[in-house]
Amino acid sequence: MSLKPRKVVQVLEGQTIYPPPLWLMRQAGRYLPEYRQTRAIAGSFLDLCYTPDFAVEVTLQPIRRYGFDAAILFSDILVIPDALHRNVRFTEGLGPQMDPLAVEEVGALKGEETLSHLAPVIETVRRLRDELPEETALLGFCGAPWTVATYMIAGKGTPDQAPARLFAYQHPREFGFLLDLLADISADYLVAQIDAGADAVQIFDSWAGILGEQEFAEFAVKPVARMVASVKARRPGAKIIAFAKGAGLLLKDYRQKTGADAIGLDWTVPLAFARELQKDGPVQGNLDPVRVVAGGKSLEDGIDHILQELGNGPLIFNLGHGITPQANPEHVTALVNRVRGSIA
Amino acid sequence: MSLKPRKVVQVLEGQTIYPPPLWLMRQAGRYLPEYRQTRAIAGSFLDLCYTPDFAVEVTLQPIRRYGFDAAILFSDILVIPDALHRNVRFTEGLGPQMDPLAVEEVGALKGEETLSHLAPVIETVRRLRDELPEETALLGFCGAPWTVATYMIAGKGTPDQAPARLFAYQHPREFGFLLDLLADISADYLVAQIDAGADAVQIFDSWAGILGEQEFAEFAVKPVARMVASVKARRPGAKIIAFAKGAGLLLKDYRQKTGADAIGLDWTVPLAFARELQKDGPVQGNLDPVRVVAGGKSLEDGIDHILQELGNGPLIFNLGHGITPQANPEHVTALVNRVRGSIA
Repeated sequence: MSLKPRKVVQVLEGQTIYPPPLWLMRQAGRYLPEYRQTRAIAGSFLDLCYTPDFAVEVTLQPIRRYGFDAAILFSDILVIPDALHRNVRFTEGLGPQMDPLAVEEVGALKGEETLSHLAPVIETVRRLRDELPEETALLGFCGAPWTVATYMIAGKGTPDQAPARLFAYQHPREFGFLLDLLADISADYLVAQIDAGADAVQIFDSWAGILGEQEFAEFAVKPVARMVASVKARRPGAKIIAFAKGAGLLLKDYRQKTGADAIGLDWTVPLAFARELQKDGPVQGNLDPVRVVAGGKSLEDGIDHILQELGNGPLIFNLGHGITPQANPEHVTALVNRVRGSIA
Repeated sequence: MSLKPRKVVQVLEGQTIYPPPLWLMRQAGRYLPEYRQTRAIAGSFLDLCYTPDFAVEVTLQPIRRYGFDAAILFSDILVIPDALHRNVRFTEGLGPQMDPLAVEEVGALKGEETLSHLAPVIETVRRLRDELPEETALLGFCGAPWTVATYMIAGKGTPDQAPARLFAYQHPREFGFLLDLLADISADYLVAQIDAGADAVQIFDSWAGILGEQEFAEFAVKPVARMVASVKARRPGAKIIAFAKGAGLLLKDYRQKTGADAIGLDWTVPLAFARELQKDGPVQGNLDPVRVVAGGKSLEDGIDHILQELGNGPLIFNLGHGITPQANPEHVTALVNRVRGSIA
């Protein structure tokens, strides 16, 4: 048990803290020169994820520099398909790629080796909890089944992940099997992260926003609800943040239907709607990452607007999507100072 | 004046017609073998747009094949930057490209030559109205200023058009100038299309969905409202469909704030919300185009769901985005038959 309170955890428990605790999605990333240095010596991107020495180092870098209230495990949502032997590779400039999954292959996918394959990631979590300051929360994470499935089926990212939508329409039974499999191994993976010391976990559904209403219920809500139920049955105190990027109006019942403790909000979520969502529990977000590139008045206005509209309830200040490589590290300093220096 | 009523126009005037009239976004396109034939002999993609013989032919092809209730002018939203001498080119597999617009260049953009540059497109509209069946509505269109600006600034399509968002944050004055310029020349272009025989026009804001709330008001709503006001001041009877793809919750006041007659809905818009929007006037949409690729039950269910939820009000049946090259032409036949054969 920590003697110093971890503010992010307190907010996840429903408390309102002002100024709100903050961290940034993808805070360990290419915008930081120290990250680029480590990245250059780590080998491939997956080597970086699977080598605790490197993964611990890059996770800690933004904590040292900015003192964020949470560290998030450095890893990638595609370590799950990698554990399923889908030949995942990250090529500079091309984005992630893997062998596209044919419908005939779905039945043969085996999740048994996931946790042994991901043991180095769990080791990273364990070391991080030892090395982090007492007051810094440690977040684990994984991708949501829908989002992970979209990459597995297309073999890459595409403008609107139409291959996975087509697969789901044409092969509903096999697609359901795939989502269930991903939900179950991802839940095991999150439990292992929690047992290794993660204070909370986030489920990233980066491609939730391209789904129609019925498909959102079936492919986004249902598998995440399955994961949350599985994790909470085994680790009742576990705190879970669910981030369905681009879901808009469909976020309305998302917390209740998934059982997640907190809801991540992308930068397109109107703040009046965010306030409604906050009445039911904590929210996290939602500054446009491009404002951190721009800096100056656009950064200040964006921060102030969020604090003003959401500061009176349980809020974890964050971006509405990952920080981009173009972000200026000094703008992040300005962001941290403005959030922490703000007066309720 | 037409003796046979044009159902799409009647719906745009607020009438409820059942079964609803239908057309498909990008209905003249690569999924049709006759289109690919014409495309192969037309030269470049812009040659196809600028040669009335070819553009008339491909516009008519889906009307001959399916008897849609509306034909939409074959052209592209990027003819406007082409008219602004931005060196627009379409390279197979690369998507549209043009010279990226630097902030220093904005002030020098001149819209005076737009209508002379686009005279062949207006000639196409004129010929189409002569050749189309009496009962077939003819739709003109253009891109919304925000969407056109995103391509002009990045010089291409990008995953979330961050270059334009950054430009807007960093150079609000120049960005406002650009949006106003695009709004004004686009309004002139729409007026010319209407004068040449278009029964109605559609404004495509394909990238509206990546904007935060304040930016949506400033970059999406305001310029479209400026265009609608300009067109309606000069052509009071003109009917305008505005399609802000991905705008979600922000569609709530979009009709009222832009002054558009009808609202296009993408496939992620929940139908209960669509029903709310329909209380204020006609809506158009919103079948997932991937269902037309899949065919069968997923196509039938998608159609039935829309007809059931939106059939009791003013509806133009359409897809929620352009039909894709992978769509099976026979699935389109099935779609047309199912919509037309449905019973209220």
